[in-house]
Amino acid sequence: MTTLDIKRIDWASLDGQGRFDALARPSRRSERDVQDVVSGIFEQVALSGGLAVTQFAERIDGFKPRRIAITPEAVAAARDALPPADTRALRVAAENVRVFHQATKPEDTAFVETTPGVKSKLVWRPIGAAGIYVPGGTAPLFSSLLMQAIPAEVAGVTTRVVVTPPAKDGSVHPAMILAAAEANLDAIWLIGGAQAIAALTYGAVLDDGEIPACDKLFGPGNAYVAEAKRYAAALPNGPSVDMPAGPSELLVIADRFCDPEIAAADLLSQAEHDADAQVILVCERAATIDAILAEVEEQLTTLPRADIARASLSEARAILVSDMAEACAVSNLYGPEHLAIQAEDAEALVASIRAAGAVFVGRWAAETLGDYAAGPSHVLPTDGGARTLGGITTASFMTSMSVQTVTEAGAERLGPIAARLARLEGLEAHARAADLRSVA
Amino acid sequence: MTTLDIKRIDWASLDGQGRFDALARPSRRSERDVQDVVSGIFEQVALSGGLAVTQFAERIDGFKPRRIAITPEAVAAARDALPPADTRALRVAAENVRVFHQATKPEDTAFVETTPGVKSKLVWRPIGAAGIYVPGGTAPLFSSLLMQAIPAEVAGVTTRVVVTPPAKDGSVHPAMILAAAEANLDAIWLIGGAQAIAALTYGAVLDDGEIPACDKLFGPGNAYVAEAKRYAAALPNGPSVDMPAGPSELLVIADRFCDPEIAAADLLSQAEHDADAQVILVCERAATIDAILAEVEEQLTTLPRADIARASLSEARAILVSDMAEACAVSNLYGPEHLAIQAEDAEALVASIRAAGAVFVGRWAAETLGDYAAGPSHVLPTDGGARTLGGITTASFMTSMSVQTVTEAGAERLGPIAARLARLEGLEAHARAADLRSVA
Ligand SMILES: [Zn+2]
Ligand SMILES: [Zn+2]
Repeated sequence: MTTLDIKRIDWASLDGQGRFDALARPSRRSERDVQDVVSGIFEQVALSGGLAVTQFAERIDGFKPRRIAITPEAVAAARDALPPADTRALRVAAENVRVFHQATKPEDTAFVETTPGVKSKLVWRPIGAAGIYVPGGTAPLFSSLLMQAIPAEVAGVTTRVVVTPPAKDGSVHPAMILAAAEANLDAIWLIGGAQAIAALTYGAVLDDGEIPACDKLFGPGNAYVAEAKRYAAALPNGPSVDMPAGPSELLVIADRFCDPEIAAADLLSQAEHDADAQVILVCERAATIDAILAEVEEQLTTLPRADIARASLSEARAILVSDMAEACAVSNLYGPEHLAIQAEDAEALVASIRAAGAVFVGRWAAETLGDYAAGPSHVLPTDGGARTLGGITTASFMTSMSVQTVTEAGAERLGPIAARLARLEGLEAHARAADLRSVA
Repeated sequence: MTTLDIKRIDWASLDGQGRFDALARPSRRSERDVQDVVSGIFEQVALSGGLAVTQFAERIDGFKPRRIAITPEAVAAARDALPPADTRALRVAAENVRVFHQATKPEDTAFVETTPGVKSKLVWRPIGAAGIYVPGGTAPLFSSLLMQAIPAEVAGVTTRVVVTPPAKDGSVHPAMILAAAEANLDAIWLIGGAQAIAALTYGAVLDDGEIPACDKLFGPGNAYVAEAKRYAAALPNGPSVDMPAGPSELLVIADRFCDPEIAAADLLSQAEHDADAQVILVCERAATIDAILAEVEEQLTTLPRADIARASLSEARAILVSDMAEACAVSNLYGPEHLAIQAEDAEALVASIRAAGAVFVGRWAAETLGDYAAGPSHVLPTDGGARTLGGITTASFMTSMSVQTVTEAGAERLGPIAARLARLEGLEAHARAADLRSVA
């Protein structure tokens, strides 16, 4: 076993540039190649629709796109293929996700009367068609289906199109069928990669039916999927996207009272995702860093995905800070997708956190619980996106509009003011439209 | 006077493609040129910072970037330069914008306990630094300053950087100073165009001080500004942006009981913005369309900006529909920035509207009131963005994160479920991180 060589950083020793560099995300490889492949796929699909989608799917996924209907029979077969405890666990996760999103769905505001007779409010509407990508990868990530399709359903989206890559043998994992059933989907499509995103962007008539063009695209994915979403969002009249999708990230803030075994287990749970996964430890005491890294080393020996975790940990950083306030400041600078606070006064520290996708507070709040079953969506901003963007919520599947009502008396009061300001901006027609309503 | 020749469309006579074409936005001119100019500016600013910003500003704006401090003296001078009624009108507008945004600021949700001992909530935080663009154009659009800088202040943003082009003579309009004072800004920067957006993106050290790099960019602007925001948003680690900025749009839904004079005045208020402004009338009766268009013709004769309005109206459309339900469906397909409903049962129709930036309900609710003084921000999605995006609200200047707390008992209950699902996805380290907290 080779010894881990996790980079240690003494925050106090760094100047501004050094600190910026210490928190920089590694730049992604071969971005140019990925761009060329993706634009090639989109150009073909724009030209020849479903035919091109099918050809790319056959070439890249190995299978033509397949529509899997979520029928009672399909669900029964999937249930038979798994231990009953798996089915029960999936149901609990789905219920928790549903309950959390029902409770946090945005509501129309009350009318606000700013001038007597002039009332406005914000109202929320579900978007039209949501395209939802569920990554495949080394295992079927059915949890990402729950974490997107259920918030979309709670938001009231009537058209939810779920796409996910087929397994190596062209099949779909029974857990994916059960997750789709829990999310009350009629069907899912087996198609992955940039070709799936192109189909959701332009719509595609396929052998098994039609994928409609979607208003907004959601979901994590590999570099091709991420680039495809970026490409789609930049198209004139193209769909919007939920957020940029990059490698997953965890930053652990730990104090001297943390349990090193638990902190290490959390760091490793992040590192096993893939070689690009980002792992950062921020701690107020060097001896605690030692203890945590020793635990990482120890636990790594028995991990099935140790090679992946090792590759990820080669980019990991352990940052020594002078106190917990500085730990929070470092985390805010980085803006992690996931933040675990394992400290005595974890709850109090949350007030200092300004940029994170999800915050796991205290020693019992494993990221694993949030990844699967606590309730909030695990689809979160990466690459520092948390500075300005939240994770997926019901609001991600909705849009707000202002509704403004005015009475005759309201127009009489506010009309002259608006008209005056319009004239000050040189917009006479605006002023006259107000005058017509306020000048008897 | 030439006769207006507004395109009339009978919705019932069109098939699906015809309807799609009828609502298509005209494609923008010389996009390639704009892209080249913008990428040239960004590349130079990335290389040589404030020096490049200054050079482009001198070349394009005609003046080097100037920081205007909003001092008591500057405010007094601005007040002296305007009629007192203008100052009062500005104050009322600012107060209404502030009251509306205070009343509609998102609040942290309550904790949701999905499993006993497992509680999560969504909390809101202001973003770090907001870059706010205020367009200049033919007149100083100080109202766009109020509609952005005040929501940002209410959201709790501590760094608000406002940029706006200098007037032709290098000066700043007194109304802009007063608006900045109403928004409690310390200063505004006189710099416009893509060079201003590049400065907000990279930060720039200038003769008058430093423009900090911003986390998110806001505001409408011309084609160069729109392209610059798109360019900035696509940069790795670049700022995010509020929304794509395109030409302004108004769709009026009118029934047989509308006042043609008022409907016409609203259409003209939109048309006077610029030659690209989009104007659409949707009406259930041909005779009402006739009456409204005759009024447009009539009112146009005395408008100072008649030439601009005429150019805009050359792309306008009057669409005849069979009933008000179909009128709402047409509007939803288009997704207008502004929607005016001038109908007997206007309030009831709002329930059928699914995609609009702002909805003005009934004959007294002039868009002009909303543009200046009703309270909601007038910075709204164009180009069909309303299908998935709302206008600027306090939430635009904030981000949400989930906060998850778990007790020992909660971990014992939910840990085994999360661990089972993690193993089903092949993620053993995830499962172990849960086991450590739940297996005694
Ligand atoms: Zn994970
Ligand atoms: Zn206007």
